[in-house]
Amino acid sequence: MNVQQQHYRTIWPDIQGAYVTIIDQTRLPFAFETVRIETIAAMVNAIKTMQVRGAPLIGVSAAYGIALAMHKNGSDTALDSAVRQLLESRPTAVNLAWAVKRMQQHLAPLTPAQRKQAAWDEAANIADEDVLQNQAIGQHGLACLQACHSGKPLQILTHCNAGWLATVDYGTALAPIYAAHDIGLPVHVWVDETRPRNQGASLTAWELAQHGVPHTVITDNAGGHLMQRGQVDMVIVGADRVTKSGDVCNKIGTYLKALAAYDQHIPFYAAVPSPTIDWQLDDGLAEIEIEERHADEVGYMQGLSAQGQLTSVRVMPLESQAHNPAFDVTPARLVTGIITEKGVYTPEALIQLKATT
Amino acid sequence: MNVQQQHYRTIWPDIQGAYVTIIDQTRLPFAFETVRIETIAAMVNAIKTMQVRGAPLIGVSAAYGIALAMHKNGSDTALDSAVRQLLESRPTAVNLAWAVKRMQQHLAPLTPAQRKQAAWDEAANIADEDVLQNQAIGQHGLACLQACHSGKPLQILTHCNAGWLATVDYGTALAPIYAAHDIGLPVHVWVDETRPRNQGASLTAWELAQHGVPHTVITDNAGGHLMQRGQVDMVIVGADRVTKSGDVCNKIGTYLKALAAYDQHIPFYAAVPSPTIDWQLDDGLAEIEIEERHADEVGYMQGLSAQGQLTSVRVMPLESQAHNPAFDVTPARLVTGIITEKGVYTPEALIQLKATT
Repeated sequence: MNVQQQHYRTIWPDIQGAYVTIIDQTRLPFAFETVRIETIAAMVNAIKTMQVRGAPLIGVSAAYGIALAMHKNGSDTALDSAVRQLLESRPTAVNLAWAVKRMQQHLAPLTPAQRKQAAWDEAANIADEDVLQNQAIGQHGLACLQACHSGKPLQILTHCNAGWLATVDYGTALAPIYAAHDIGLPVHVWVDETRPRNQGASLTAWELAQHGVPHTVITDNAGGHLMQRGQVDMVIVGADRVTKSGDVCNKIGTYLKALAAYDQHIPFYAAVPSPTIDWQLDDGLAEIEIEERHADEVGYMQGLSAQGQLTSVRVMPLESQAHNPAFDVTPARLVTGIITEKGVYTPEALIQLKATT
Repeated sequence: MNVQQQHYRTIWPDIQGAYVTIIDQTRLPFAFETVRIETIAAMVNAIKTMQVRGAPLIGVSAAYGIALAMHKNGSDTALDSAVRQLLESRPTAVNLAWAVKRMQQHLAPLTPAQRKQAAWDEAANIADEDVLQNQAIGQHGLACLQACHSGKPLQILTHCNAGWLATVDYGTALAPIYAAHDIGLPVHVWVDETRPRNQGASLTAWELAQHGVPHTVITDNAGGHLMQRGQVDMVIVGADRVTKSGDVCNKIGTYLKALAAYDQHIPFYAAVPSPTIDWQLDDGLAEIEIEERHADEVGYMQGLSAQGQLTSVRVMPLESQAHNPAFDVTPARLVTGIITEKGVYTPEALIQLKATT
């Protein structure tokens, strides 16, 4: 999407120069800086330090990490080493393991000499597929937006960041919103700040602002009130995992917004690429283990000081403890639909999608 | 309650010395500092800058403000001037206007010479009544806690600060929790940080820590997840206004927690002194206007820097807008009971309380 009136992806290769450029997301929203990644070690570091984040983008970054390794040395040893380093960089990210495995399976049968170009090509394929998938999510979701649209600007609430910054381009939850904006359907987005890591206020707000989509940041507490007052027409979120019954595991706080949407008869959608649906899982509450992250994410908050420095401040007593579950599960009974690249499915109908995958 | 093993109220007079001491709440939780207030002007400033905050405490502070004025000069002019300055300090606080009017009605018929002692006495009466009221809320609420207690430590979730810092002592929502803790009933409190002003993380956590009550700070997003996982036995919040039908107007985000409690069959209580019930109001959603506060409360967050300085940091893009509704309304259908100094009432039975007031 656009940054300063220019179209960007979150990651792009220069095969001639043997490097990959990324947007340093740890500097957002206060500085837009791109970084040249020239080695596998630098890519592992970029993933670990969250210069790149978002499950789909992590997968593509890992694929390019392998291409960088193969560019220097196509040997079996180099390939194995690259695979191992990447798998250890963020062990819980499903897309990372998937992308690394796909690269490995593609490259292993080739000769070391063939691997250099093949690795660049396959990484580019993975990136392009992500873009196409998200564009398709955007088009299917657009139909849901058009169905809700009554003439006034459509008021959409989203939680966390499932925008283009989390993918190569377009995003998942934000893809239908960009699609609507780009064809002139008036939209306005309520952006949950999404404590503790504030991805809504720092990333979603930034990317919407850069692309020119009207939006307003709210605290995570405010969405229910806005829904009660008729100021929200629909909710769209991304998801980290969806069960075959339609339970949605997403960033902590999603369940509370789904409850309010249900209470106020407002459609609640999750937008995901179909591989995010785990056909092995049925009951999300019973079967999905929720990652607990470090309490310091609750205890500290990062922002720009009056002196223009990125500064971390303690926001609770030093003697108090904090607890930091990272995700929650929204039961299918609260979900209107799952927007995928293949179409929009009610939780009950989701199983039909399995046949097509 | 206790601070550093010593019992404190939030405000106390020294009539001999002609001053009032307050706890400077703008310095909490990182510094415990008391301030001597010697003039009506200083008290108005303390209210305006939120060195004292919380509706009941503001009322008592205003009463002592008038006592300080009368101590210097008991004339009609001085009384009128004190009343006017206080009423203008925070115009929306109901208790402030109530306390100022009570002082005025009490003092107006007296001679200037009589007013000095009478003002100190009446302010002390208002303070003591607040304490007694909160102790009674604590005892009635304690019965609710005991009813929920099953042997394991009772897990109670609260939102914002309705503790002793918002009153003269004991608090409203926290009064039953202190009562339980003080008789040895094991309790653990989940403290919502309560963005945007973070009263949970900064004030509730601090006062619970000082009094030795086990507690854990969570983001406003986490409560629903904890309820889903059986980690919350009951919810108790304060309220700014309650309608005669039992709708509860409280800090933004309360409605979301009430929805989750209802969804998970967890009791949800509001604890208030009976004057907080507005017998003129029936439908809270239709009839209560919600204050919108400055967007900068969402856009900035204050905390302690690594250098030990209270520092404000910008937490969203400079080019994005924010929206900041301060309260929401929890409909009576989600409320288990209203805990008052006169007893605990279901929303349906609340009207019986009117007869006793």
